[in-house]
Amino acid sequence: MSYKGHIKIGIIGGNGRMGIWFRTLFEAKGYECLISDRGTELSNIDIARSCNVIIVATPMEVFEDVIKEIAPHIQEDAFLTDICSLKSTQVKRMLNYTNCSVAGSHPLFGPYESYTKKLRVALCPARGDDWFIWWDNFLKENGAITITLSPEMHDKYMAVIQALNHLILISLGTTLCHEELNPEMLHALSTPSFEKQLEIMLRLIPQDPNLYSRIQMDNPFTLDALKNFKRNFETLYCIVSTNKDEEFVRYFKYVQETSKKFLKKPD
Amino acid sequence: MSYKGHIKIGIIGGNGRMGIWFRTLFEAKGYECLISDRGTELSNIDIARSCNVIIVATPMEVFEDVIKEIAPHIQEDAFLTDICSLKSTQVKRMLNYTNCSVAGSHPLFGPYESYTKKLRVALCPARGDDWFIWWDNFLKENGAITITLSPEMHDKYMAVIQALNHLILISLGTTLCHEELNPEMLHALSTPSFEKQLEIMLRLIPQDPNLYSRIQMDNPFTLDALKNFKRNFETLYCIVSTNKDEEFVRYFKYVQETSKKFLKKPD
Repeated sequence: MSYKGHIKIGIIGGNGRMGIWFRTLFEAKGYECLISDRGTELSNIDIARSCNVIIVATPMEVFEDVIKEIAPHIQEDAFLTDICSLKSTQVKRMLNYTNCSVAGSHPLFGPYESYTKKLRVALCPARGDDWFIWWDNFLKENGAITITLSPEMHDKYMAVIQALNHLILISLGTTLCHEELNPEMLHALSTPSFEKQLEIMLRLIPQDPNLYSRIQMDNPFTLDALKNFKRNFETLYCIVSTNKDEEFVRYFKYVQETSKKFLKKPD
Repeated sequence: MSYKGHIKIGIIGGNGRMGIWFRTLFEAKGYECLISDRGTELSNIDIARSCNVIIVATPMEVFEDVIKEIAPHIQEDAFLTDICSLKSTQVKRMLNYTNCSVAGSHPLFGPYESYTKKLRVALCPARGDDWFIWWDNFLKENGAITITLSPEMHDKYMAVIQALNHLILISLGTTLCHEELNPEMLHALSTPSFEKQLEIMLRLIPQDPNLYSRIQMDNPFTLDALKNFKRNFETLYCIVSTNKDEEFVRYFKYVQETSKKFLKKPD
């Protein structure tokens, strides 16, 4: 542990699903952990004043307002982090409004994941080393795998991993609903590949539509990734609709060859 | 078993990967099983003349030529089936060129699957009941789940399960290759959903490009499914690129609601 004094955690948005997830973890590890949320005894400003680790776990759409509200009350030797799904504008905002230590965090999992699984958290160090080392260590000691990278790099990857993947799944879902397919028949006839595709499409059902909207629209790299996919799908559609067999085979072989680099190396 | 006489199996294309898969199964179950392929002692016509169960396991691109070649030599009380990934034109061809019993079969798995797994086979009965009952029973007795449906219905489902799914995965593969992403970083930052998406995309690597081309181009229902997906993706792209937050949320909620019907009922 790099930070030596008494640690008092404060979670803003502590009654949200991810807020509860982190609070449960902190309390299990013996930390003092205060929370604020709509209707709590403590306000966001109370948390900012009295805690030296402040985790903003509010919905992304109110994130900037919350930072503006709490910034003047955060102690200079405190640590501010967040759990937003995007990092470039979020880290900039935390840096611009405060003078304290700052890092961006993105837990790459949802609030329904168990604590015993190897979970991943992307971290973007921004200001101050000591608190960052403490936070990184805390996550690792509790079984997480942390990945440290710049906010821009984070968002560039998320444009593909989240925004593009979500848009593919939503488009597929709409298509299936239009096609008048019998659900039992669809499952019965599924190949192993389509079965997995269907499974991840159906993971959309319990998700928060506002979060999914922000993941699309607040990431500066989204449109490039979506445009790239759209162009590739259109090219392939054109090849198929004009029966260009040889061109299809050439295209497919190219993808088979170049995507080999993504094959996972054994751990 | 509906057929009472001596059964002699013949596999045309018996040295192909699926041919070998079926031959291994038949021999393990004590059946006499002959094969023809390029360079074998027996010709396709030898098989047609001497066997009463004829399974055509050749590549789809030579399927019609093979049926034309063998049809005049098949005994009228024999059974002809195939293992093509598509069924409407294939079953029509088998019916038109022959007078024997006919059914279309589509094993919904690849040649690398083990015999012990619950595998699925789509079946399209076409002419003659007795042999169809024998074939259906043989597959079920050996652990397969069979799904009986019309050739047209089969192809309508495959337009989504195979053609559309493949085209999404090929487009995604091309996009990832263009985006200059570090493969290790991509895996490290993956959400559980994207990890599965990547996994099925990488299943493209060992596949046969010519088979994948036929699955796109020989299915009369492909273009409708692809067009439907393309339109949905474009609509969503338009919503995202013009920052129409409310519209995105409405669209997403609609998909969440309507796709609930595809949630798998517990077995």
